[in-house]
Amino acid sequence: MNKNKKPLILVSNDDGYNFNGIKTLTAVAREFGEVMVVAPMQHQSGKGSAITVSTPLRAIPVKSDEDMKMYLVNGTPTDCAKLALDQLLEGRTPDLMLSGINHGLNTGVSTIYSGTMGVAFEGCVHGVPSVAFSYDDYSFNADMNPCIPIVRHVISRVLTQGLPPDICLNVNIPRIVESLKGIKVTTTCMGRWINEFERRTDPHGVDYYWLMGEYERHSPNDDSTDLYWIDRGWATATPCKIDQTDRDAMHQISLLLS
Amino acid sequence: MNKNKKPLILVSNDDGYNFNGIKTLTAVAREFGEVMVVAPMQHQSGKGSAITVSTPLRAIPVKSDEDMKMYLVNGTPTDCAKLALDQLLEGRTPDLMLSGINHGLNTGVSTIYSGTMGVAFEGCVHGVPSVAFSYDDYSFNADMNPCIPIVRHVISRVLTQGLPPDICLNVNIPRIVESLKGIKVTTTCMGRWINEFERRTDPHGVDYYWLMGEYERHSPNDDSTDLYWIDRGWATATPCKIDQTDRDAMHQISLLLS
Repeated sequence: MNKNKKPLILVSNDDGYNFNGIKTLTAVAREFGEVMVVAPMQHQSGKGSAITVSTPLRAIPVKSDEDMKMYLVNGTPTDCAKLALDQLLEGRTPDLMLSGINHGLNTGVSTIYSGTMGVAFEGCVHGVPSVAFSYDDYSFNADMNPCIPIVRHVISRVLTQGLPPDICLNVNIPRIVESLKGIKVTTTCMGRWINEFERRTDPHGVDYYWLMGEYERHSPNDDSTDLYWIDRGWATATPCKIDQTDRDAMHQISLLLS
Repeated sequence: MNKNKKPLILVSNDDGYNFNGIKTLTAVAREFGEVMVVAPMQHQSGKGSAITVSTPLRAIPVKSDEDMKMYLVNGTPTDCAKLALDQLLEGRTPDLMLSGINHGLNTGVSTIYSGTMGVAFEGCVHGVPSVAFSYDDYSFNADMNPCIPIVRHVISRVLTQGLPPDICLNVNIPRIVESLKGIKVTTTCMGRWINEFERRTDPHGVDYYWLMGEYERHSPNDDSTDLYWIDRGWATATPCKIDQTDRDAMHQISLLLS
């Protein structure tokens, strides 16, 4: 980080520019430095690290103050991150990338489907310390104020100390009834979805399917996992890497394919 | 695998049902067992593990022979995999899931953007041995015949021996000029894209952006990586896991956030 200047913070999300989560995240980020928001024009939940290859992107500037710029992009969360880093920041590299606050948790295997995490992974690819925030309230008009102390704490620490290379943070915040117990560093709770679709029949007699599903945890009592601690009133931070190679399996796969 | 029956193999891709890659993969899969193809109606490159949450899905049956069924789905590759596993297979679990053959490599960090890999990761989530195949020919009418020996070899081994839990294979096949040298088990070549967008101006004077980019490798001489061996005429198989937690970083992150 350039010691003589305010930090530069890039903010995006997957719910779209007009959700409370990104408004709250942007407000907290502005306490720490200059902010550029580059957010999807439309809802992009579940887009993971999807990118747009067959149609062109546009970036509509909607705000340009000295300490705060904002663009809306007709693409995915990852498109927003890429377009900001390659074009809109005009050669500057952010000191920090933030995503969220997502309206809904991104615990467990949701990591791979989450557009919120897509932004953090993209920051990671480009060597920028990156944090995704998600909150256990799925409603459009969720009150995000209970998240502010945790968000402020994490931003402060990551801005001053950075993150290890090729690691980003997946921070999940439980629905806070009384008071948050603190923040635990966790693993992703592995599991799978069951009863994933609701089948309906349209007025013409043809079936169609809505994605739904329940998450069935492989190890519900494993006290290293994000879901274990979310259930118990703790916020969680899971360090995630972009390199998915399983080095431990390489020898076994070599034998299998030889 | 049920010893008394033919194996059941689920096939999908991201290029769409009408590409040579999936036709070739399906033909090889049929040598080994009963096949169900559930493929996107439209091109879905770059969709990663994106899922469709805001609109319903449809599955159009286009073929229903004894040993071969085929459905087209108006969604992403991961939607195809989920819909097949939860609905279209009517309670049966496949012995193997195959994705591709992609028209173009999915080496390096492409793993996180690849819809071909999205299918394999989804199989992995559901405990089904899963393999993604990609070939270094990006053209619509690529001749996929050079891939057949490798595809046949990998299917045969994975069907008989299975894969470790929570691991899928990312198989990449080089453009074969003379003859393939063999198959190496590799790591993902880490790196990042540079010059990611080409900016143009529309007839109304407004800028728009096409995603392009060149992949800049972090360690081009690392002989553990997929791209190192693809360059040298070898096919590669990278074991990939869905759990992206970096356990080695957990202590450091605990100190950082405490």
